[in-house]
Amino acid sequence: MTLIVQKFGGSSVSDAEGIKRVAKRIVETRKAGNDVVVAVSAMGDSTDELLDLAHEVTPIPAPRELDMLLTAGERISMALLAMAIKSLGHDARSFTGSQAGMITDAHHGSARIVDVTPVRLREALDEGAIVIVAGFQGFNRDTKDITTLGRGGSDTTAVALAAALDADICEIYTDVDGVFTSDPRVVPLARKIDRITSEEMLELAASGAKVLHIRAVEYARRHGVTLHVRSSFNNNEGTIVYNPAPSPEGEESNVEDPIIAGVASDLSEAKITVVGVPDVPGKAAEIFTIVARTDANVDMIVQNVSSAATGLTDISFTVPKSQGQAALTALSNAQAEVGFESLQYDDQIGKLALVGAGMRTNAGVSAKLFDALNKAGINIEMISTSEIRISVVTRADSVNEALRAVHTAFDLDAEQAAVVHGGTGR
Amino acid sequence: MTLIVQKFGGSSVSDAEGIKRVAKRIVETRKAGNDVVVAVSAMGDSTDELLDLAHEVTPIPAPRELDMLLTAGERISMALLAMAIKSLGHDARSFTGSQAGMITDAHHGSARIVDVTPVRLREALDEGAIVIVAGFQGFNRDTKDITTLGRGGSDTTAVALAAALDADICEIYTDVDGVFTSDPRVVPLARKIDRITSEEMLELAASGAKVLHIRAVEYARRHGVTLHVRSSFNNNEGTIVYNPAPSPEGEESNVEDPIIAGVASDLSEAKITVVGVPDVPGKAAEIFTIVARTDANVDMIVQNVSSAATGLTDISFTVPKSQGQAALTALSNAQAEVGFESLQYDDQIGKLALVGAGMRTNAGVSAKLFDALNKAGINIEMISTSEIRISVVTRADSVNEALRAVHTAFDLDAEQAAVVHGGTGR
Repeated sequence: MTLIVQKFGGSSVSDAEGIKRVAKRIVETRKAGNDVVVAVSAMGDSTDELLDLAHEVTPIPAPRELDMLLTAGERISMALLAMAIKSLGHDARSFTGSQAGMITDAHHGSARIVDVTPVRLREALDEGAIVIVAGFQGFNRDTKDITTLGRGGSDTTAVALAAALDADICEIYTDVDGVFTSDPRVVPLARKIDRITSEEMLELAASGAKVLHIRAVEYARRHGVTLHVRSSFNNNEGTIVYNPAPSPEGEESNVEDPIIAGVASDLSEAKITVVGVPDVPGKAAEIFTIVARTDANVDMIVQNVSSAATGLTDISFTVPKSQGQAALTALSNAQAEVGFESLQYDDQIGKLALVGAGMRTNAGVSAKLFDALNKAGINIEMISTSEIRISVVTRADSVNEALRAVHTAFDLDAEQAAVVHGGTGR
Repeated sequence: MTLIVQKFGGSSVSDAEGIKRVAKRIVETRKAGNDVVVAVSAMGDSTDELLDLAHEVTPIPAPRELDMLLTAGERISMALLAMAIKSLGHDARSFTGSQAGMITDAHHGSARIVDVTPVRLREALDEGAIVIVAGFQGFNRDTKDITTLGRGGSDTTAVALAAALDADICEIYTDVDGVFTSDPRVVPLARKIDRITSEEMLELAASGAKVLHIRAVEYARRHGVTLHVRSSFNNNEGTIVYNPAPSPEGEESNVEDPIIAGVASDLSEAKITVVGVPDVPGKAAEIFTIVARTDANVDMIVQNVSSAATGLTDISFTVPKSQGQAALTALSNAQAEVGFESLQYDDQIGKLALVGAGMRTNAGVSAKLFDALNKAGINIEMISTSEIRISVVTRADSVNEALRAVHTAFDLDAEQAAVVHGGTGR
């Protein structure tokens, strides 16, 4: 029998009607002869409402208690979903993260899955039940405490269940039709991607594509889980995120894959420039060791050509805006030790990333990208490249225009505009 | 060190302000040098809101899933309460019913406690933490499923914790100042009772006094737990519910106890009369065996004097209105077998109960009660007596007047009217 894991986000189960609609969808999958395991998020904005409540009580909620609080959200949605399915005449049972054997480390608020022991889920499946699991939550074996996986955690729950249960596919239901070549809200002619490798998906997710959480894609890639990202509002085929079998010659096995998978943008980062760094070996390492201690996720790094006259150079890097202040403070405290002149902070930047497995063997991609931006009159402030991604930083207010220009230049435009729904699940 | 168990109902923790107020109160108890374990209900009306949501999804929610759903309520309040206490600089940890070792049978929606194994609570207390436990919920060891104890369950949770942890006292915080000689909303001159035996409290609770749930009083009585019912809105001493030590001579050990503890009323019952029952041995047993199979809680039973002419008698009894239809149907189906003539159903009755341990040795109590009702022009339809209770049934619309008349007749009136708050916890 085929085993399908399905994940439904908060926007799909935002009210009783949504829950009943999702229940029907699950039952259809069951009726088609599949075993079904469902990971579900909290209803609509209920997680944010619980967070607000916590902040009404105290400005800095204790992490253990915050996890206890937030896990109430999925408890509500999963119980309602299970009773909706039962009312349609199919057996269904809901399980919390700990009941489902979702074992994590003890890092409250952003716990990582260390093991999945779905004993009770297998029993329930063997007894013919549809299994509903609370997304986003887990359990630490040592402290015996409830944990949460952080934002996007429900996607990760679904993928981890698919891996542990050796599911045939993991369907991620969302409010868009799949993964697009760019954000349809910015680029109206964005096309739905039919198939994309998990590596490319990872780069798109890291570059600001919000349809899938990066941790979930990493988990799917590491455990060989095939994802199907699709809409919960229609029955259209969505986007398959797959792990290509390595070909014997080390080449791409799917030669028909498009060279460029998509282009993403991100306005959540800021640029920090360390001005006047002595151009001697080890200084960059010194700086990024200091930044790393603040747990900041450094993305792009650019070091200017050193001035021969002064023997000084500038080093710029981007971090999420939320982590900018901590990085600045840490660097500022180390100014004398490192010996730089000053710090600059710029949160009016936009990042654009062009992603495609094909570009590693195609030298003209960078040139085409820079040419497209130049023709659109957009100034490039930073550039960084990886095997399958080229990222550039522009002014924040020109990134949307940049996105459209690049999308067109790489022949990604569809013939007609996509239908866009609002909201995203967690 | 003294160990105090405190229970706070939904009306005490209905919003962030309430939670902060309760947290301060708990911290005061801790600062006074006590170990503190708290049982807390869901916030305000949140349990009813979750129930409404379930009924939007399906008219008959699956019991296992309904329990999973409803237990989210206490999860929210207990986590918020723990974080509020932590923000006041005291260690606090919240525990679900299953984490607290609240083991129940598998009867979803009205599970009974079969064991309490508070291992984690003891550990937390030993480490100096204030312990917060979700009221109303438990866990079945065989099915490994979450259960709820039914309405009033949080009182029972508190008492069960007090018994299992051998607490010195169990404080039940509510929105009134304690147990009153009658309902202050009906009898303005009702007096707060300073001390009452658990036996009397049991009769008052069974007779409609809503301040304490009858199951909690039963549990306290069986396990020798002393209760202190008091207001969460002030620091006044409330009512002590105690278990008197049996005196060697078998007499009341507290001769100074008032003869009459209080007078309660109840409008939630209906009267069923089985008309024309053959007056032969075994007929009453037959009737109540049939009724018992519907799980109805029969309270008062009155059998009329048989008519010598017909050899027939009438049997009347009261049941909660919610169980009336099931009892009627069961009896109706058995009409031929039992051989009665007809059934009458009357849901316009009120029940008044006079409770007091002293009345067993005081023959004049019944006479005084009937005289008071007679003078007030109130007709008595049924009478039943026990060792410490006399109950009468009147028309529903005269029970409040009856309450006031009896309260005055037994010298229970205070010199001035009590202050009444609204709402009750669960």
